[in-house]
Amino acid sequence: MGSNFGDLQPDIQPLGTARNYAEEFIEALKKQAFMRHFSTQEMTLLAEYMDCFGVPRNSTVIKEGDDGDFLAILITGEAKIVRSNGETDNVLCVLEPGALFGEMSMIDGRARLASCVTSEPSDFAVLTIPKLNDMLADHPRLGNKFLLMLLGLSAARLRQSLDVERPLRGVVIACI
Amino acid sequence: MGSNFGDLQPDIQPLGTARNYAEEFIEALKKQAFMRHFSTQEMTLLAEYMDCFGVPRNSTVIKEGDDGDFLAILITGEAKIVRSNGETDNVLCVLEPGALFGEMSMIDGRARLASCVTSEPSDFAVLTIPKLNDMLADHPRLGNKFLLMLLGLSAARLRQSLDVERPLRGVVIACI
Repeated sequence: MGSNFGDLQPDIQPLGTARNYAEEFIEALKKQAFMRHFSTQEMTLLAEYMDCFGVPRNSTVIKEGDDGDFLAILITGEAKIVRSNGETDNVLCVLEPGALFGEMSMIDGRARLASCVTSEPSDFAVLTIPKLNDMLADHPRLGNKFLLMLLGLSAARLRQSLDVERPLRGVVIACI
Repeated sequence: MGSNFGDLQPDIQPLGTARNYAEEFIEALKKQAFMRHFSTQEMTLLAEYMDCFGVPRNSTVIKEGDDGDFLAILITGEAKIVRSNGETDNVLCVLEPGALFGEMSMIDGRARLASCVTSEPSDFAVLTIPKLNDMLADHPRLGNKFLLMLLGLSAARLRQSLDVERPLRGVVIACI
């Protein structure tokens, strides 16, 4: 079963397009190494295709096992990636502003491998499949840059997941 | 150190653009599930950006540890993905026509995680970074579709690499 970002919790506040929060959006994206090739103008354009949500602490914004149809970027606040292990929940990593997550399930539409739960009041920017398709149709060159960025992130996650000599680090275990 | 596909072995024969072998190229791609959304026309256009090479059996076409700057598709023949483990070589999987491999190192430019060695006389189609960039510039919408296909393949490899309950299968271990 899929779920939209805002549907999971009644107390999640839709804040409208990320274009209204361009300054905070761009400041967060500049912390993400994979966005280093994007100009301010390109990030502003990207913001038009993403919606922001304000989320209280201790709220589940992605639920393990749900089908995926969006990716998200943490703009402000803090969130944990949590995987249930029978009766206990394991915190796999802590997301800081600029973290991009959820793209794997967005791409293949299959089940989320873990949950994402806020540990502080947080704002997220969300990109859905229909909005990604709109961006690809309207701005195919920006679309290619964005998809290449996601491929770079996927390559980093893959390399870490296959590297048996080093412990898993944040990049790969934020892979949901 | 990077290496071009044809540089590795003196007996690899450059065959020119894959456009000259469109029928075999398209027949092989149709065996690749991730190419199912591409029309014959789109695959023909893609062929213009790839070069074909004829390779004898027992030839190394990708060498573990080299930097990556191309991906390849096996068109005819058979090849093995091999990782060295100290003094012995482990065959991780056998590639059949239609197999696309090498995209991870092409994207991040880092070291190949394994080698690719032909076990039969084989033809490959190769896409380099400069040719990928040409395709993105000339045909950005075909580029969108091609990058989304690579993202789908990466998601499948990631999901298999993270799935501790099932043994690794071909998709992920062709990840070089």
